[in-house]
Amino acid sequence: MKKEITVLTYGTFDMFHIGHLKLLQRLKELGTKLVVAVSTDEFNKIKGKKTLIPFAQRALIVENIKCVDMVIAEDNWEQKIDDIKKYNIDIFSMGDDWEGKFDFLKEYCDVVYLPRTDNISTTQLKQELNSFLDIYEK
Amino acid sequence: MKKEITVLTYGTFDMFHIGHLKLLQRLKELGTKLVVAVSTDEFNKIKGKKTLIPFAQRALIVENIKCVDMVIAEDNWEQKIDDIKKYNIDIFSMGDDWEGKFDFLKEYCDVVYLPRTDNISTTQLKQELNSFLDIYEK
Repeated sequence: MKKEITVLTYGTFDMFHIGHLKLLQRLKELGTKLVVAVSTDEFNKIKGKKTLIPFAQRALIVENIKCVDMVIAEDNWEQKIDDIKKYNIDIFSMGDDWEGKFDFLKEYCDVVYLPRTDNISTTQLKQELNSFLDIYEK
Repeated sequence: MKKEITVLTYGTFDMFHIGHLKLLQRLKELGTKLVVAVSTDEFNKIKGKKTLIPFAQRALIVENIKCVDMVIAEDNWEQKIDDIKKYNIDIFSMGDDWEGKFDFLKEYCDVVYLPRTDNISTTQLKQELNSFLDIYEK
């Protein structure tokens, strides 16, 4: 019987777009089960991060993506080690814009930084939305 | 053995949001299999409709929603009867903003107009995005 390999990632997933989908699919390919921690509105506030879409909606959309097996809430900086133990995580994975930042988790599980292959980010989407809305409202 | 009941709907699904997800889930509950026809960019152009997200991305996101079984392209006004026959559709369903508009399909399958229960529309989302971006860029 094939061993289950559980992957964990963290993110905000505001205004769900193709970059999010492709990232989740690549994360799932690292293992057999994907757990996604979605940051709460309260935690984003602490980080000075604004989202358009509230937590409950962001979490529900991620939870309904085919390659996602479970969604949990991220509400503080300190929870990662507990999450890794609680959900029997084999691989902790983030985009390589976080390269090196989570090496302290290597004593608990594998840590993989995924190269960003596509050029889609929420920041870019916001810029595109802005010019789109300019046109849309004329 | 339970008979498969296949549901068909049509839509654009620009900037995928919680209203889209909940509509798809309610459509799926009408039957056992959900086929979603996503309008192409060319067809939207004919209809005078602009989207932010190109067809390939809109289709891929809808296809990756758990309750969706199949995505096809909508590229003309005339394809509905052919689609109903080709995909063995039992129920054609749209939001009740289309009430009465598709009654001509009743000789081919059941036609169900779903009441809009939530107040989320892409138009509203665009308005919200606009005020969000105003704040975001200050």
